[in-house]
Amino acid sequence: MVKTIYWKDNKVVMLDQSRLPLEVSYIECSNYECVADAISRLLIRGAPAIGIAASMGIAIGGLGISASDTEEFRKKIKPVMYHLLSTRPTAVNIKWAVDRFTKFIEANMDKPVSTLKDMLVQESINVLNEDIEINRAIGQWGAQFINDGDTVLTHCNAGSLATGGYGTATSPMLIAKEQGKKFRVFADETRPVLQGARLTAWELMQAGIDVTLITDNSAGALMKKGMIDLAIVGTDRTTRNGDVANKIGTYSVAVLCKEHNIPFYVAAPLSSIDFNMSSGDQIPIEERAAEEVTTIWGHRVAPEGVKVINMAFDVTPAKYVSAIITQKGAFRPSDLHKIQDEKSDLSSIRIGNK
Amino acid sequence: MVKTIYWKDNKVVMLDQSRLPLEVSYIECSNYECVADAISRLLIRGAPAIGIAASMGIAIGGLGISASDTEEFRKKIKPVMYHLLSTRPTAVNIKWAVDRFTKFIEANMDKPVSTLKDMLVQESINVLNEDIEINRAIGQWGAQFINDGDTVLTHCNAGSLATGGYGTATSPMLIAKEQGKKFRVFADETRPVLQGARLTAWELMQAGIDVTLITDNSAGALMKKGMIDLAIVGTDRTTRNGDVANKIGTYSVAVLCKEHNIPFYVAAPLSSIDFNMSSGDQIPIEERAAEEVTTIWGHRVAPEGVKVINMAFDVTPAKYVSAIITQKGAFRPSDLHKIQDEKSDLSSIRIGNK
Repeated sequence: MVKTIYWKDNKVVMLDQSRLPLEVSYIECSNYECVADAISRLLIRGAPAIGIAASMGIAIGGLGISASDTEEFRKKIKPVMYHLLSTRPTAVNIKWAVDRFTKFIEANMDKPVSTLKDMLVQESINVLNEDIEINRAIGQWGAQFINDGDTVLTHCNAGSLATGGYGTATSPMLIAKEQGKKFRVFADETRPVLQGARLTAWELMQAGIDVTLITDNSAGALMKKGMIDLAIVGTDRTTRNGDVANKIGTYSVAVLCKEHNIPFYVAAPLSSIDFNMSSGDQIPIEERAAEEVTTIWGHRVAPEGVKVINMAFDVTPAKYVSAIITQKGAFRPSDLHKIQDEKSDLSSIRIGNK
Repeated sequence: MVKTIYWKDNKVVMLDQSRLPLEVSYIECSNYECVADAISRLLIRGAPAIGIAASMGIAIGGLGISASDTEEFRKKIKPVMYHLLSTRPTAVNIKWAVDRFTKFIEANMDKPVSTLKDMLVQESINVLNEDIEINRAIGQWGAQFINDGDTVLTHCNAGSLATGGYGTATSPMLIAKEQGKKFRVFADETRPVLQGARLTAWELMQAGIDVTLITDNSAGALMKKGMIDLAIVGTDRTTRNGDVANKIGTYSVAVLCKEHNIPFYVAAPLSSIDFNMSSGDQIPIEERAAEEVTTIWGHRVAPEGVKVINMAFDVTPAKYVSAIITQKGAFRPSDLHKIQDEKSDLSSIRIGNK
């Protein structure tokens, strides 16, 4: 499996995703400015991966501070956090990391500065490991849906590259492979930004999984030929009722799955489920620049002045979703809200393995 | 409306489609070698348009022949025909043009050479005009399905650029505009070759039609929002039972239309209906080079060595097709075979206007 980000010898090591799939190179950051720069230049992307990078950025920023006591340390680490927050103002995972580390420092003001520094490093590694554990758990609950001989369709990139490891939608595939299952994956190229072609196809090849790249236009015809057995996608936000916001085109995949009686699964860490939002109708859909559609690597592919609608996401209603696979198990969308209730007996509502 | 090809002052004038949409330039051919070169270099493409170009190529080749009698003329025009046939060996419309002109010459061997030459020029102009008339008739039967305020979805390019004029799928739009209807068109960009972005969007803009370019991934989400009222596409081959082979992705559009109760129309000149083939299962589907998917204008967008499935076409079963719009009227797919029978009362089986 590809390593997206890790800590090594007091350095933050990150795969430079901006060069994929043509070139595989890692950058090593010895200071937080370097980490911030990597986030702002999109060398690392994907919400969980950005949260990990921010955490390690704070830790490495801490190592560079000279302070005679923890109070001075706490003051001096604030600019590090502000700097990281400024890199991608809308990335909620950076805010999440800053909040976590602020509380962590406050809870450990009694430690010597050098000890606190080491603890921050360990905490940032914990953030990475927790993400990997969540994703592995998703994979363990999800792998049961992949059988020998299956072909799995996926859309966009909800893979290792967007997380600390394993990915969300890709984790069931990686675990199924660990279990020795023989299957293959069709990766939608995912226009307009081509994350499927550039990232998903690449990382599955690295993991030794049999992957075939297809245009988004091909999924329906391949289903009709009986060549697709299930679909697994990720999600940017899932609402309480099981409606799923994900990359544009996900809804079309779901409708095609329904028409062909193919199960459609969504891999969703609990952090991506918005239990306060009752349905997907409330999710604002980001419209992005026309140039994503009209130009490809600087080459214009459409007439000057043409109107464009470029919605980044769509919402798939819960009725199209066979199961939502979380780190606590796979559930019917209609049962999703029960996970919140600590008294729920999850084994009674899990799909498949209890 | 864009002029794709026309005859002017003993020259064949063709829009150079290889430069679209960035540059609009016409080439003028005074000899048949120039026409053949334009066909082989894809300056002109689309089955009907290639047939017209071959016809005009024969006519202009005839003008360049010096012969003392028609027998000599007939011998000397053979190499012209062979040369044109060699440009795109699989283009059935070139063969069709050669057959038509061979018979035409044989039927007029009693004319003086100079008269025969003029007649060939007129016959090539007839080929163009007949194509335009067929397409206009498709448009006149099809325009009834476009209402004020509608948004029409189309896929790939079945437009003026592929024909002598009006196009097939675009003709109902052009006629509806002539009738003063207010509507707009969403053009799928149509990966991998992007004919929707490069050609359809451009030619509809030229015709003054309100067109918006979307990714293929967006059609489903826009239907769900109630933003699409009908779809009209072309066809490469339609079988006796009403199954429709067309550009890859057409089937997905048809399934999405069904899910949203949106009518799905196919514009099909009778020449594209294969009455000898009983169903779409028999249509061989061309697989094309992986590079169409993995590279865009020479820029690699996918990992080296990745497997690719790149089917050029798919087959939409008749059950998804609301009507097939021909030059003789719009018909239910199940009634299509009745058109062949000269005793059929077409007014009793036409949909909409009788």
